[in-house]
Amino acid sequence: MTTGYEWVVDAGGCRAEALASREALESLFASLIEALDLHPAAPAVWREFPGTGGMTGVVLLSESHLTIHTWPEHGFLALNLYCCSPRPAWDFEGELRSRFGAAGVRVRSLERSLP
Amino acid sequence: MTTGYEWVVDAGGCRAEALASREALESLFASLIEALDLHPAAPAVWREFPGTGGMTGVVLLSESHLTIHTWPEHGFLALNLYCCSPRPAWDFEGELRSRFGAAGVRVRSLERSLP
Repeated sequence: MTTGYEWVVDAGGCRAEALASREALESLFASLIEALDLHPAAPAVWREFPGTGGMTGVVLLSESHLTIHTWPEHGFLALNLYCCSPRPAWDFEGELRSRFGAAGVRVRSLERSLP
Repeated sequence: MTTGYEWVVDAGGCRAEALASREALESLFASLIEALDLHPAAPAVWREFPGTGGMTGVVLLSESHLTIHTWPEHGFLALNLYCCSPRPAWDFEGELRSRFGAAGVRVRSLERSLP
């Protein structure tokens, strides 16, 4: 039995100012949510971390969850999307390159299932 | 450069009533947070899904995030803990067996790092 898939996405070489921009991160989430027909079940929670401007956002979805963490000082972002029902592929690499200037993107896809 | 580790934990054969119990899930989170010295940066968000009693909980941490999703009808739970700084091992298997009656537990540990 499968209870969905999780995309675990790490991107490096990103522009620091984009990683510290809540607007850029909210726009990424909005595009993902629309493209994959996801349904937030509660308002997103966002926090900015003092000093570095790093951001964290988490959204509880009817389909499971969507999270992001950014480290402007390292040009790094880490995104998770767990979907308990099938979804088409999304172009994480292309989107993160164009939105954040990512130089490298690693996308891992994990099946979540009864062990 | 490493920006931490994520534990991706799937457990099957769990007791349905425990998976539908917000109290049991909050107790699990509290124990994990205390044992691993984690720091919630916002209140946890919880939702119960109508019909099955399945629960979802997400916590934004200073160290990244902690999430859980349960499917009482399948005896299944899926937990994620992403920690951007090192933490000792936690006995996910033993804890999920004793708290939820899990018959099988799969723990995957992923490094999150610059690609």
